[in-house]
Amino acid sequence: MNTPPAAGGLGAAAAMEALRVAVDEALDRALPPEADWPATIHRAVRYSLFAGGKRIRPALVLAAGEAVGGAREDLMPLACAVELVHTYSLVHDDLPAMDDDDLRRGKPTSHKVFGEAIAILAGDALLTRAFHLMAEVPEGWDATRVLRRVRAAAILGEACGTTGLIGGQVTDLESEGREVEAAALERLHRAKTGALLSACVRGGAILGGAGEEELERLSGYASAIGLAFQVVDDVLDATEDAEHLGKTAGKDEAAKKATYVTLHGLERARGMAAALLREALAAVSPLGPRGELLGAIARLVVDRRS
Amino acid sequence: MNTPPAAGGLGAAAAMEALRVAVDEALDRALPPEADWPATIHRAVRYSLFAGGKRIRPALVLAAGEAVGGAREDLMPLACAVELVHTYSLVHDDLPAMDDDDLRRGKPTSHKVFGEAIAILAGDALLTRAFHLMAEVPEGWDATRVLRRVRAAAILGEACGTTGLIGGQVTDLESEGREVEAAALERLHRAKTGALLSACVRGGAILGGAGEEELERLSGYASAIGLAFQVVDDVLDATEDAEHLGKTAGKDEAAKKATYVTLHGLERARGMAAALLREALAAVSPLGPRGELLGAIARLVVDRRS
Repeated sequence: MNTPPAAGGLGAAAAMEALRVAVDEALDRALPPEADWPATIHRAVRYSLFAGGKRIRPALVLAAGEAVGGAREDLMPLACAVELVHTYSLVHDDLPAMDDDDLRRGKPTSHKVFGEAIAILAGDALLTRAFHLMAEVPEGWDATRVLRRVRAAAILGEACGTTGLIGGQVTDLESEGREVEAAALERLHRAKTGALLSACVRGGAILGGAGEEELERLSGYASAIGLAFQVVDDVLDATEDAEHLGKTAGKDEAAKKATYVTLHGLERARGMAAALLREALAAVSPLGPRGELLGAIARLVVDRRS
Repeated sequence: MNTPPAAGGLGAAAAMEALRVAVDEALDRALPPEADWPATIHRAVRYSLFAGGKRIRPALVLAAGEAVGGAREDLMPLACAVELVHTYSLVHDDLPAMDDDDLRRGKPTSHKVFGEAIAILAGDALLTRAFHLMAEVPEGWDATRVLRRVRAAAILGEACGTTGLIGGQVTDLESEGREVEAAALERLHRAKTGALLSACVRGGAILGGAGEEELERLSGYASAIGLAFQVVDDVLDATEDAEHLGKTAGKDEAAKKATYVTLHGLERARGMAAALLREALAAVSPLGPRGELLGAIARLVVDRRS
């Protein structure tokens, strides 16, 4: 009695949609208009940023921060920054010199539309704007708020670096066509996918003023969904067609990439995703209703079709 | 009487060399060892960063900050960050999809040694580390110090963005083989070269605790040397051979690029560089001995041979 309504089912879907709209508005405000000089780069940046992403990473920032009592206004710059970073990594990973992908979210990739030079620069611009945004602290903020912002920026910086996003992509490129053991595959994905997802949750929690215990609990949640995310990616690549996926399907097998599916088989991979979801839900259940949106995002990560 | 010795002549050269050594040590500490996982990217990052750069940008940060009374310790993270950013921009600009250069500072460019994918990621890693470094604020700093760091990071972010470094490179690519007017050329170079040089001086001044008047004076200095830098670059490209320059010479004319030399002729371009040097020296002369290192750097920018 008198407990807040659960954020499961339709409530969670509506809550996620509201977050997505708020994030898209904030991203729009954070970027120069397309017509501003030099227009080409602003068009390219917006083309990839507003290509129908589900905004799972910003939602994690907002959900984690609000779960510990943070204000939306304090959380939104990081929510935007993680989506800018995520989009930069997609634009650069899709380049001919890297994964050479023609389709992303059902649309031609940036270099297909704008050419390689502009695609490289658009990625650079997205990454730069992410950190610039974190440094744009309003006048008159007190020391605690500023310090939380700086700590969140440092967490983001580490997640994007050579032991995070970039290191994961390097290792991914280097492991194509080679035998990869389960432990090495997990390390790769903890860097390539897990580090940024974890930065969303931990950064949001710090901006929201989380205590040590809450931070540890949320870190466990982040770690579980980070790995679940990649396992589900591999399952989708092996089972979905390009139309559902919005990108070229079956590429992993064609490229002889080690994935959770090629390594463990489809059924065991699905079982791993389910176990990781239970782990994530268990980590946030002590937060009660405040943690329900985080639970809904975990379900979304595991149940998604693309 | 009793004024400190002028930092001109040999004194300036020794002071610059001392700064260069200190910056190289700090850069070395700021990066993971080459052998750390994933080794390829750390090798590529260090290959380009320690390729014999003159460290003019870090010297500007330190000279500007110390001219207004700043401590070396407070200035060094930005000094490292601007060199990381500068190196990232060279690595990406040299890529086949951009300026397609084989030589840089007399050595094969990153993509020639490590391949395109790693060169793109090495640039990404250099840029990421720059902002990460700015966000690594030691525990226990007071609010003023933290806030200065954040303001300097915001200045760096703007200089690297689509109205700075990236915008300049976009416009540079787009103006190849086209007629470019003098005003458009100046705008291009204020973005491509001037914005970062200006961020070095203004960022260093802010970290050093400059007042409004000092900041304005130093901004004038920064603006003059920023433009001088590009004019001298164009003069060198038109007059030096590849051996002296450490990169392919005469490329601008071959690519039908608009430069200060193709637009104004060699002699007028040289005259512009000299006038900008006088402007820079005049801006810092009221600082007295404290501004002499800045004066020496301005002379170095204009008198350099590569």
